[in-house]
Amino acid sequence: MSGAAAALRIDIVSLFPDMVRASLDASIPARAVERGLAQIEYHDLRRWGIGKHRAVDDEPYGGGAGMLMRPEPLVEAIEELRTPESLVVLFDAGGERLRQPRVRDLATRPHLVILCGRYEGVDERVRAYVDLELSIGDFVLSGGEPAAALLCDAILRIIPGAIDAASLDEESFSTELLEYPQFTRPAEFRGVGVPEVLTSGNHAAVAAWRREQAERRTAERRPDLLNPSPRGSRE
Amino acid sequence: MSGAAAALRIDIVSLFPDMVRASLDASIPARAVERGLAQIEYHDLRRWGIGKHRAVDDEPYGGGAGMLMRPEPLVEAIEELRTPESLVVLFDAGGERLRQPRVRDLATRPHLVILCGRYEGVDERVRAYVDLELSIGDFVLSGGEPAAALLCDAILRIIPGAIDAASLDEESFSTELLEYPQFTRPAEFRGVGVPEVLTSGNHAAVAAWRREQAERRTAERRPDLLNPSPRGSRE
Repeated sequence: MSGAAAALRIDIVSLFPDMVRASLDASIPARAVERGLAQIEYHDLRRWGIGKHRAVDDEPYGGGAGMLMRPEPLVEAIEELRTPESLVVLFDAGGERLRQPRVRDLATRPHLVILCGRYEGVDERVRAYVDLELSIGDFVLSGGEPAAALLCDAILRIIPGAIDAASLDEESFSTELLEYPQFTRPAEFRGVGVPEVLTSGNHAAVAAWRREQAERRTAERRPDLLNPSPRGSRE
Repeated sequence: MSGAAAALRIDIVSLFPDMVRASLDASIPARAVERGLAQIEYHDLRRWGIGKHRAVDDEPYGGGAGMLMRPEPLVEAIEELRTPESLVVLFDAGGERLRQPRVRDLATRPHLVILCGRYEGVDERVRAYVDLELSIGDFVLSGGEPAAALLCDAILRIIPGAIDAASLDEESFSTELLEYPQFTRPAEFRGVGVPEVLTSGNHAAVAAWRREQAERRTAERRPDLLNPSPRGSRE
């Protein structure tokens, strides 16, 4: 975690910057910012809009429904915000599938510029100015804002100091296994108790049970995590 | 789209309901609600908290870092909000991977109850009261809130009337292909033009070019969409 010394800076460029801001304004993401571990700036793309109406979109060449985002506002935003240390991220259905190793990588960067697309898509010529295209999954959103909020949440929580480091070591995808079943009080809930081993005080037995349960659950629900396919990064 | 007659109702249960509310308070999701196509209620889980401190979490049996969500508040919330028509959704790393067909399915339901987990996880015994466990992807969030906002955004935009139906037919994952490259004005951007076919006025040639480009891009970036593997639903 060599990025711990300097705070991570994130610039978010969006037509609805308040949507992203509000969703990062509580809980662990907010705490990371309050502690100075990260600095987030929210930019309205219309600042780089064209003409007195600050236009950012236009009709597609070749026809079709909906509006596309023009290249000039996005590229001018990139050029104004970019530094030699920046990584410019765009969400795209054909991009790299977001996974925890990439989240960890992004959390150590000094500067991210995150572009939120809108309308039916972004002019193809913007891609040449982007460093990383990311896909959150095989579904369609109204824009990049929910994806940006999710990505920032995932990044901010693992910046050293945001939450307890021990918690990070035990969760799903840090070990490449799903998490074991977890129980807290009450000891009996509507007739269902807690596995005896968990109250035995035998730490080695607890650890063995958890490992076995995590492996079993992963084998049942996500066998692909145990036997990654060669085309894993695109799945 | 048989759900068009009655509005979709969504109940969101969270320790940070305002995070979800704010991120759905603009653009297409807000429009779907304004048009009466959907009704969203945001519930603070502490309403079902235990004792005068409205506790919702406790330490894990067997030890370990962090706090788990106790079963009683979540299960009481489910029981209060559930109707015979409800589908109760919990986010879990081992759940079904969210994809567009499931988004389409959820958009036709009369009632969704969406539970946002927090802390290190949820007591195992809650699962018995949940109808559908969903995973957004192989990464870790500080809670279910960004996932809930993303899911609602994806659902709300495809409710009939929220956006132009023709737009829905052309986008990625509605055809099982990535989208073709898209271009809008200017005709030349920093020395890069627009493919000639798109300004030819030949609709058949445009359609053929777009189909070919979509197939090529999908083959290059997401070959798994062209040759789904048998374990596709879990990948």
